[in-house]
Amino acid sequence: MNNKDSALHVQEGIPQPEQVSPYFQYKRKKRFSADAAFEGILKGDRVILSQAITIIESTAKQDIELANSIIERCLPYSGNSIRIGITGVPGVGKSTFIEAFGKYLTSIGKKIAVLAVDPSSERSKGSILGDKTRMEELSIDPKAFIRPSPSGLTLGGVARKTRETIILCEAAGFDVIIIETVGVGQSETVVKSMVDFFLLLMLSGAGDELQGIKRGIMEMADALVITKADGDNVAKAIAAKALYKSALQLFPKNENGWIPPVDTCSVFINETISNIWKIIEEFENQTKTNGFFVKHRTEQSVKTFFDWMNDLLKEHFYSNSLIENNINEMIPEIKIGNLSPYQAGTKLVHKYLKK
Amino acid sequence: MNNKDSALHVQEGIPQPEQVSPYFQYKRKKRFSADAAFEGILKGDRVILSQAITIIESTAKQDIELANSIIERCLPYSGNSIRIGITGVPGVGKSTFIEAFGKYLTSIGKKIAVLAVDPSSERSKGSILGDKTRMEELSIDPKAFIRPSPSGLTLGGVARKTRETIILCEAAGFDVIIIETVGVGQSETVVKSMVDFFLLLMLSGAGDELQGIKRGIMEMADALVITKADGDNVAKAIAAKALYKSALQLFPKNENGWIPPVDTCSVFINETISNIWKIIEEFENQTKTNGFFVKHRTEQSVKTFFDWMNDLLKEHFYSNSLIENNINEMIPEIKIGNLSPYQAGTKLVHKYLKK
Repeated sequence: MNNKDSALHVQEGIPQPEQVSPYFQYKRKKRFSADAAFEGILKGDRVILSQAITIIESTAKQDIELANSIIERCLPYSGNSIRIGITGVPGVGKSTFIEAFGKYLTSIGKKIAVLAVDPSSERSKGSILGDKTRMEELSIDPKAFIRPSPSGLTLGGVARKTRETIILCEAAGFDVIIIETVGVGQSETVVKSMVDFFLLLMLSGAGDELQGIKRGIMEMADALVITKADGDNVAKAIAAKALYKSALQLFPKNENGWIPPVDTCSVFINETISNIWKIIEEFENQTKTNGFFVKHRTEQSVKTFFDWMNDLLKEHFYSNSLIENNINEMIPEIKIGNLSPYQAGTKLVHKYLKK
Repeated sequence: MNNKDSALHVQEGIPQPEQVSPYFQYKRKKRFSADAAFEGILKGDRVILSQAITIIESTAKQDIELANSIIERCLPYSGNSIRIGITGVPGVGKSTFIEAFGKYLTSIGKKIAVLAVDPSSERSKGSILGDKTRMEELSIDPKAFIRPSPSGLTLGGVARKTRETIILCEAAGFDVIIIETVGVGQSETVVKSMVDFFLLLMLSGAGDELQGIKRGIMEMADALVITKADGDNVAKAIAAKALYKSALQLFPKNENGWIPPVDTCSVFINETISNIWKIIEEFENQTKTNGFFVKHRTEQSVKTFFDWMNDLLKEHFYSNSLIENNINEMIPEIKIGNLSPYQAGTKLVHKYLKK
């Protein structure tokens, strides 16, 4: 097949995959087939992986079918990684941590993929992973693959694309998938719903430690790590650790029996980085033994199925211009108490469904 | 009007409104008009209020229009109460507390309505408010009105009915609306979304205080009160208070500037009950001064509008038998990883919307 050949041709001529924009390659060489993409992904070809992800992220009609075919082929080869979500407020040192953590993982032979979930990446360019230079060493590590958040999509859209990218990365043989997000919004819940392990990075400091962390995020964490625990910061970090430990004790036990540990780390002290991997390995062992690991993934998939249908239903409803106009007219009446939100809502939905 | 007359006639003959089932009255006397209902509600007639609530809770087609007319008339007269949500795990003493708290409020001249949100009331009959005898004194207090949770509805349905019941109770002149719920599930979020002030009752005890309280509920609380702080329990309650206080300090500040206080109480010590009312009055003053009170209610109404539309869209989709069959066929495939939840969901929603 011609499509297939041209895709393979792309691969041959490029020994340094990141030097030329994969998207540019994709545009220049036109379309490749699902078979060619699948074959390349399975071989671990990062150029083809990048191109395939670009197709998945595309909202162009002609790409959707191709994307679906690629995913379908990769699905049976996916699932063999540990998926780690990492969050924390801006300034906590996420990129620095991920670089150090990633380098450690590749040094012990792991292949890692770093993805990002940031629905605001269009607005606040560079907030996470937008600027690969913030992970200078990791971005040129042959065992690491870094991909910024798809832009210009809603949170539901970003979630979908990221989840499908995980499938492709797993089929490409990556052992550890790291999903980075910013600890200030709704995206944490979405990331939590697609990972096996959720790591919350925290700053040491006095008193108001949780300021800035959105309510509820701490509860989601499978481990809490205080960053920058070096030099003058050590004492503060240790104090923060004790504080968080006692706070976490107040939360009810996790369904999986895991008690989220609290630790400190510094990118300058290798042992503190490897300790975090030890925690994750222990979590993996424990939850694989008690069956929660698989159970959790199965539940995630089913929940994603329903969440996605609900998202689509809403998307279709609210993008209807007639509905939109009606909503805009009704809101002021609801606000001043002249219209019941229930009656207004019922009226609109019935109107829409009759249409 | 004949309808109107018969409704008023109901009222005349019954000096003890709670002796005869209002629903029975409603059935026997047939239908009354929205005008008659509105007039009776505005006068504070509790029989008519009960009947009107029964119409609102009804799912019969012929009642829906009447219910809407009644709500429409009452809406401009609603909003003048403080709405208090009260939750806590079974055994915390919710009914006992509400009885003592309610009696205190009526003793200082307040008219109070106690409603319940319990989507499981069909299954676990009597779990909350089902058994009025648990509030013996309050249920015969002429200044109090107690209404159990509407049964046989989904959480969305219960929420809607409760919210509309609040409108009627406010139009009937009740100053304080108490919404009771069980601190073990999703209903807290729903109650939180319809009240001004959310009170979490907690048991004193050692170590694992938060066990049994669903994650996230503590964060919603505007005040945390440790019950049964009498006799041998006092020391434990004081210790629990200190513990909760330090735990709450870890949470970020509320948007409204309010710092949730922690207190102990005993239904045998009047002062501890009146203290809780003082806390709520302080909250009301503070949030009315800084504008948050009105802002919060406005936001709640708009959110309810969208939530309700989303509920209806889902309800209509999932009650479609073709969709249901497809979902049941797809779930096992999704679980074993043969089918992407996104592709499956997209397929189904497109099928449904084309129909």
